Amino acid sequence: MITIAIDLMGSDLGYEELSNAVIQYLDKKKDVNVILFGQEKEIAPLFSNVDSSRYRIVDCETVIPMEIKPLDFLRSKTSSLYKAIDSVKNGEADAVLTAGSTGGFVTGCSMLLRNIDGIPRSGLCTPFPTSKKGKGAVFIDVGANNVNTAEDLVGFAKMGRLYCQCVLNEENPSTYLMSNGTEEGKGTDEIVEAYHLLKEQNFPNFKGNAEARNLLDGEHDLVIAPGFVGNVYLKSTEGTAAMMNSLIKKSFKRNLLTKIGYLFSSKGFKEMKETMDYRRFGGAILLGVNGVAIKAHGNSNTYAFYMAIDVADRMVRNGIIDKIKKEFANGQV
Amino acid sequence: MITIAIDLMGSDLGYEELSNAVIQYLDKKKDVNVILFGQEKEIAPLFSNVDSSRYRIVDCETVIPMEIKPLDFLRSKTSSLYKAIDSVKNGEADAVLTAGSTGGFVTGCSMLLRNIDGIPRSGLCTPFPTSKKGKGAVFIDVGANNVNTAEDLVGFAKMGRLYCQCVLNEENPSTYLMSNGTEEGKGTDEIVEAYHLLKEQNFPNFKGNAEARNLLDGEHDLVIAPGFVGNVYLKSTEGTAAMMNSLIKKSFKRNLLTKIGYLFSSKGFKEMKETMDYRRFGGAILLGVNGVAIKAHGNSNTYAFYMAIDVADRMVRNGIIDKIKKEFANGQV
Repeated sequence: MITIAIDLMGSDLGYEELSNAVIQYLDKKKDVNVILFGQEKEIAPLFSNVDSSRYRIVDCETVIPMEIKPLDFLRSKTSSLYKAIDSVKNGEADAVLTAGSTGGFVTGCSMLLRNIDGIPRSGLCTPFPTSKKGKGAVFIDVGANNVNTAEDLVGFAKMGRLYCQCVLNEENPSTYLMSNGTEEGKGTDEIVEAYHLLKEQNFPNFKGNAEARNLLDGEHDLVIAPGFVGNVYLKSTEGTAAMMNSLIKKSFKRNLLTKIGYLFSSKGFKEMKETMDYRRFGGAILLGVNGVAIKAHGNSNTYAFYMAIDVADRMVRNGIIDKIKKEFANGQV
Repeated sequence: MITIAIDLMGSDLGYEELSNAVIQYLDKKKDVNVILFGQEKEIAPLFSNVDSSRYRIVDCETVIPMEIKPLDFLRSKTSSLYKAIDSVKNGEADAVLTAGSTGGFVTGCSMLLRNIDGIPRSGLCTPFPTSKKGKGAVFIDVGANNVNTAEDLVGFAKMGRLYCQCVLNEENPSTYLMSNGTEEGKGTDEIVEAYHLLKEQNFPNFKGNAEARNLLDGEHDLVIAPGFVGNVYLKSTEGTAAMMNSLIKKSFKRNLLTKIGYLFSSKGFKEMKETMDYRRFGGAILLGVNGVAIKAHGNSNTYAFYMAIDVADRMVRNGIIDKIKKEFANGQV
């Protein structure tokens, strides 16, 4: 039996949207149970038709704000996120999932679950949609850290590879370092050193450096970056895509003719929207802590949250934590 | 009289495309002359109808490759780029412009022209199109450096502000540091320190940190980043835009109906294309060296190269080098 701790507070869309995803998932996977964290009076009515052996509600009073300092997190013991993470720490649950504050999630998981022995730094990992429909490109770290050492980057590569294998069924992901040129020797000192370390240890399918220009072509399976750089990459990509989507809408809304144009071409654009849909990938994963920890998008709808539960389930089912422990057990990165 | 040194070698589209831009510019601005660097036998026929007092051809044998080491650049004295930069150094020309190798351009300008006294590091500055048609957002540094100190970043802000004033007629640009959160204290140590320095000296219209997500909304006039991060931002933005453009094309080409849709909506998309057109901004500028130095896009067509000549002209005409010298004359950043 797999037990997933689900924080139902702090999302943009509220209890019902997330609860529907949970109910659908429980219906589909009979060997998954959940512990639900949030206001009982909100949750209980939504689950009234669900077999009570499949879920448990932990009534919580407070929600973690979007920005929180580490000490304040430790004081927020009545919050849904604290309690949800704590349930993984004390062994009640196998995984924790939230659509709330990213900062609170990273801080909370780092402080309560702590890093697996031998892991230099945990990293936030997220798959991006690529121009090949259905194919994701996995990026780590997209913002758990600011600066990272070469050893941190090698650790990210190892954990990212296990994630590709366990969740995306990508057995031998092509692996790149994000840099400002493809040649060996390009980039900051950490990138250059990480390049050498990965080469030296014959890291499987390591392809060297890649420029930020063409990472979403479907050929780059796993891309490693220091946290600050990965965060800029994530946000600039999201921002540019959002801006272009708004320009596309504006183009079609220009006048009657362009609106008619939309009617004719909408099927083509529906497919484009599906190709670009990040929600299929279920959010970001904090890799390196003692437990499966997933941060769904704040604006997750039922579909997106369902996919996030699925990622948590796959990670537990495929024993990724044990695999990471084994990988780092010799103490060397 | 303004004299611009123009390297006609090393571009993707060749002599004719660039020469047409030069001829059009000479025709429009009677107080601008040019020195042309490249193979005389290629250039002379293209300029046969131009008043010979307006241009001079310097016959060059070799072209600088896309990747070049500093020492190799210094040995390439017969190359068009070396000679073009050298003509600014020895006072024959007021500005240098190339559509060739970016690496060669940055290396060559840094080595031959050297930094203006008091400038900690020169930075590559480029305007991006924003979602507001015709409005640019200026980014510096997009790749002349890897790592930068807080003092470098403050220097970029000062130079970038002068660029906005001299070239874009933006008298009081809103100025931001690129970071992973908007709050004070977010980002790497250099960002945090630069934030304090800019606050401390009441840098005009300094707005604090900005996330990479919404920098192209037309509200961010000037954005400062360390070179490696700025380069990732530049390339991820270009890459995402290119990917979406190709998905838009694919959407319209899907079948007969979608093709008909394109016929109806093409005017709307033409406007979108104009909004996103980076060519109007004429390329990147190396700010901080002793001379006006412009790198046009490698694939510049006549229009783009014309705009790049115009940027060079405006920078000279508005005395940006003297303004930078004055700004940094007290030796403090």
